[in-house]
Amino acid sequence: MRISHLVSERTKDVPQGANVKSHILLVRAGYIKQVSNGIYTLLPPAQRVSQKIQKIIREEMDNIGGQEVLFPVVMPREMWDKSGRYSSIGAEMLRFKDRTGRDMLLGMTHEEAAVHACQNIIKSYDQLPFMIYQIQTKYRDEARPRAGLIRVKEFTMKDGYSFHTSAEDLEKYYNEVYEAYNRIYTRIGMKNFISVKSDNGAMGGSYAHEFMLLTDIGEDSIVICPSCNARANMEVAVSKYDMPKFEDAPLKEVYTGKAKSIEEVCNFLKIQPNQTMKAVCYAVVGDNKKTVVAFVRGDKEVNEAKLKNVVGGEIVVKDLADTELVKGNIGAVGLKGDNLQIVFDKSLEGLCGLVTGANKEEYHLTGVNMTRDFAGVEYFDIVKVNEGELCPHCGKPLTIKRGIEIGNIFNLDTKYTKSMGMTVAMPDGSLINPIMGCYGIGVGRSLASVAEESADEKGLNWPMAIAPWQVYLCPLRNDDEIVANKAEELYKTLSSKFEVIYDDRKVSAGVKLTDSELMGIPVRVVISPRSLANNEAEITIRATGEKIMIALSELENKLTELCKI
Amino acid sequence: MRISHLVSERTKDVPQGANVKSHILLVRAGYIKQVSNGIYTLLPPAQRVSQKIQKIIREEMDNIGGQEVLFPVVMPREMWDKSGRYSSIGAEMLRFKDRTGRDMLLGMTHEEAAVHACQNIIKSYDQLPFMIYQIQTKYRDEARPRAGLIRVKEFTMKDGYSFHTSAEDLEKYYNEVYEAYNRIYTRIGMKNFISVKSDNGAMGGSYAHEFMLLTDIGEDSIVICPSCNARANMEVAVSKYDMPKFEDAPLKEVYTGKAKSIEEVCNFLKIQPNQTMKAVCYAVVGDNKKTVVAFVRGDKEVNEAKLKNVVGGEIVVKDLADTELVKGNIGAVGLKGDNLQIVFDKSLEGLCGLVTGANKEEYHLTGVNMTRDFAGVEYFDIVKVNEGELCPHCGKPLTIKRGIEIGNIFNLDTKYTKSMGMTVAMPDGSLINPIMGCYGIGVGRSLASVAEESADEKGLNWPMAIAPWQVYLCPLRNDDEIVANKAEELYKTLSSKFEVIYDDRKVSAGVKLTDSELMGIPVRVVISPRSLANNEAEITIRATGEKIMIALSELENKLTELCKI
Repeated sequence: MRISHLVSERTKDVPQGANVKSHILLVRAGYIKQVSNGIYTLLPPAQRVSQKIQKIIREEMDNIGGQEVLFPVVMPREMWDKSGRYSSIGAEMLRFKDRTGRDMLLGMTHEEAAVHACQNIIKSYDQLPFMIYQIQTKYRDEARPRAGLIRVKEFTMKDGYSFHTSAEDLEKYYNEVYEAYNRIYTRIGMKNFISVKSDNGAMGGSYAHEFMLLTDIGEDSIVICPSCNARANMEVAVSKYDMPKFEDAPLKEVYTGKAKSIEEVCNFLKIQPNQTMKAVCYAVVGDNKKTVVAFVRGDKEVNEAKLKNVVGGEIVVKDLADTELVKGNIGAVGLKGDNLQIVFDKSLEGLCGLVTGANKEEYHLTGVNMTRDFAGVEYFDIVKVNEGELCPHCGKPLTIKRGIEIGNIFNLDTKYTKSMGMTVAMPDGSLINPIMGCYGIGVGRSLASVAEESADEKGLNWPMAIAPWQVYLCPLRNDDEIVANKAEELYKTLSSKFEVIYDDRKVSAGVKLTDSELMGIPVRVVISPRSLANNEAEITIRATGEKIMIALSELENKLTELCKI
Repeated sequence: MRISHLVSERTKDVPQGANVKSHILLVRAGYIKQVSNGIYTLLPPAQRVSQKIQKIIREEMDNIGGQEVLFPVVMPREMWDKSGRYSSIGAEMLRFKDRTGRDMLLGMTHEEAAVHACQNIIKSYDQLPFMIYQIQTKYRDEARPRAGLIRVKEFTMKDGYSFHTSAEDLEKYYNEVYEAYNRIYTRIGMKNFISVKSDNGAMGGSYAHEFMLLTDIGEDSIVICPSCNARANMEVAVSKYDMPKFEDAPLKEVYTGKAKSIEEVCNFLKIQPNQTMKAVCYAVVGDNKKTVVAFVRGDKEVNEAKLKNVVGGEIVVKDLADTELVKGNIGAVGLKGDNLQIVFDKSLEGLCGLVTGANKEEYHLTGVNMTRDFAGVEYFDIVKVNEGELCPHCGKPLTIKRGIEIGNIFNLDTKYTKSMGMTVAMPDGSLINPIMGCYGIGVGRSLASVAEESADEKGLNWPMAIAPWQVYLCPLRNDDEIVANKAEELYKTLSSKFEVIYDDRKVSAGVKLTDSELMGIPVRVVISPRSLANNEAEITIRATGEKIMIALSELENKLTELCKI
């Protein structure tokens, strides 16, 4: 490819509002162009990287028996009514009417389509297990797209679905996919990735893993035990922590004035946060009237993913303006209101001497005794793990890291086969709903994640396996006829063996060298009047900065060695 | 691939309402499954064919310097407002609002996206020409999906866009694409395809070619001159035809009773259709009040594509119930009404003695003299060519054939670069809007077209280059242990060299042989107790039915020869 005709521009301009390295560099190096908020065109360099990632994914999926299919992007409502997700998924799913007034939607995931594809085709136990997958565009109407290709509305994704006659059979295959995912990330050149236990979210089913790239720009918190290597997404992580013992006392209303936050109340009453009982209020999506009041110990934070599972629906922090609840003074004792659901966290179970709101302005209650004042209530785990709490497996302190989710594998159990009525006949003639596994990898996010991890202060820095081109052919002073001719000759010969991007522009050496680094091409070959005088070229390895002077006669051999994956 | 685990079922059931061979066979052979009207899942065999077609398309596009990109499926209204197409395209374009209430659409073509991608990146003449292309899902809310993958709502398409500084440069590149398209169709195994001049439709621009598979199931009519080989889509085809001379006479109202159609009026008045002037009325999409009345000679049919270009907007046949027009008696003389646009066809120019409606029930007018009665009106070519009319180039009789459009190439001129304000600087510093070419191929339609053309009474019949598998390994009597073991061994060894679908089922020989033919796999290898007793296998060539007994030791060599593309 001649860079003069490449539809891609290198620029120094940082996109407005961008603060994530991969976002800035993918724009600056001419890989992507924003069309709308969270919607991008992949320019030729990015599409080349994307294709290479897709090829690796296909190979690994085929390697574990995957059968590639193509599901539709647009699907009819009826299919999603069967699974119940037409209603249960929120505004991130795009719904519309077609020209005949029929309700349709844009697929953001394809469990229903997978069951539809197999239903009435797969009828007998001996046709299982199998896995089908697709690589297809998905659209998710993200409320807050961010960070370039990291969180977008439209994305290319590989999603796979396996079908099994037993949980054991799924587990066996699940592990094969797990290994395939490890191979995929390794092959595309990702280094600092891990797998963690996760929440199933909208998918349903009973267990799940996410693959995460560990990076400070990640949106997810991952709880890690450095001792026993246990890992879990914050959404599902649990820990062991101290249960404090305070002196029991009768309930007493105390004046706390303007003190509202846990910090203010603690300062006012001269107590520690773990002696308080914090209230956080949520609205339930699709149920305007209901309010969920979550009570957790004052030293802990509500884990919305866990709370959502307790509530059984999407939740968002509630604006209390329209309610009778007294903001900053909400307490569990004597709390009244229409359509309230009260949820207590396990961190409160059995405690006494606690402080909570008195449900009136300027007052709190002291002396709350959970056992006495809330006899018979159920406690749920609805809190986040704090750094330094103890590993539930080995008892050693936990650490918390940030990560980007780069893939996930789920056990969907029979959620979809049951609701959609897919059955297979077993050897004894009985009919069962097959158990499903579900396996996703975002192609664009993988691209951005590798970019994020490998980039340095000079620009992108692609691993050889997914670099858009292997070699950046860079003649300096190609206004010099000898250089220009040699460059054309090298472009022709090298292109037959390598993927070459050829900087045929008549611009300064500085611009060319900077661009080659910004674009992150793994190997740069520079020729100049001086190098040609010695019948040499200068090779620079992007990842290390290592420079090698090489005889032109040896150039091809050297490149063969360097371009090996 | 073991057929026992393949997500694909062979069936004798013909899909309801299906009457097109490729539609019936792609369903019956387990290639596609309908999800909704005009929306299909590609099951593994079809996805394999699709991938092979895509690979050939990519190679040929890259071969003429194409740069692959990926445009978004979902685009914002603003981009399409610039080109004017947000309003000018009808209900086939899916429009919706995102969660913030912003108008969005599903791309059914990507001219705007292509200009957006290049704008501000390509700034100078020396960066041109170039071509970008994508292979991506498109959605078109077809009013009448039909014939399986031939006419669908959602489809995979390769669309390419080239940019040029001059019409000459575009023409040169246009011809390169033209040749590339010929290579693509040849490589995917299509035989009876031709290119024809066509209408630009919604694309704008000034000239265009369609590639057509000639087949009786085609929706398009193609006018062909067998003598000079001139070809054009009926939408734009022109011909030479006789201009009759009738006796001039004064206008006279004559009673015609219930005679309304041209045939009835001709019978009543004992004249030929070419002495009548036929009125056909149309509504204009987006303009409720307007009525277009097209007048053509009675022996000719209105060509709606041509008329649309005259009117400058989408047209549909008008329901006259709400108008003052007298159905069956409409005539151009004294025709009155609000918002009428009258269009005369060239077949009427200069004629006299014509019969037309009298604009009142039970009466027609005779003696119409175009020159006298419609002085100064403009005549347009708005008719279809009739079989047997003469070629405008060589004067020999024309024939009409049916075809499926399998691809198209357009000159878009500066329609999009101008409306969207894309400019490049020329050597003298002046700014021009680049001239664009546009190049489409439907992947799914190509698949269905090859299926349509190559299938026979036994089923599908894939050319080797795009067959989902090259070899159908078919052990008969694999309840016999020797056969079963040999089959497993052959599956293992042959799979490392060929794409093998292995019929590992314990079903009758009849089912296996029939399925192999229905699926259309080019080479079938049968082993049975009898053949193994002679250390032989039986090879059958799907396309010819030829059978070859071959020593097992020679099997690999023979397959290598047969699988060559």
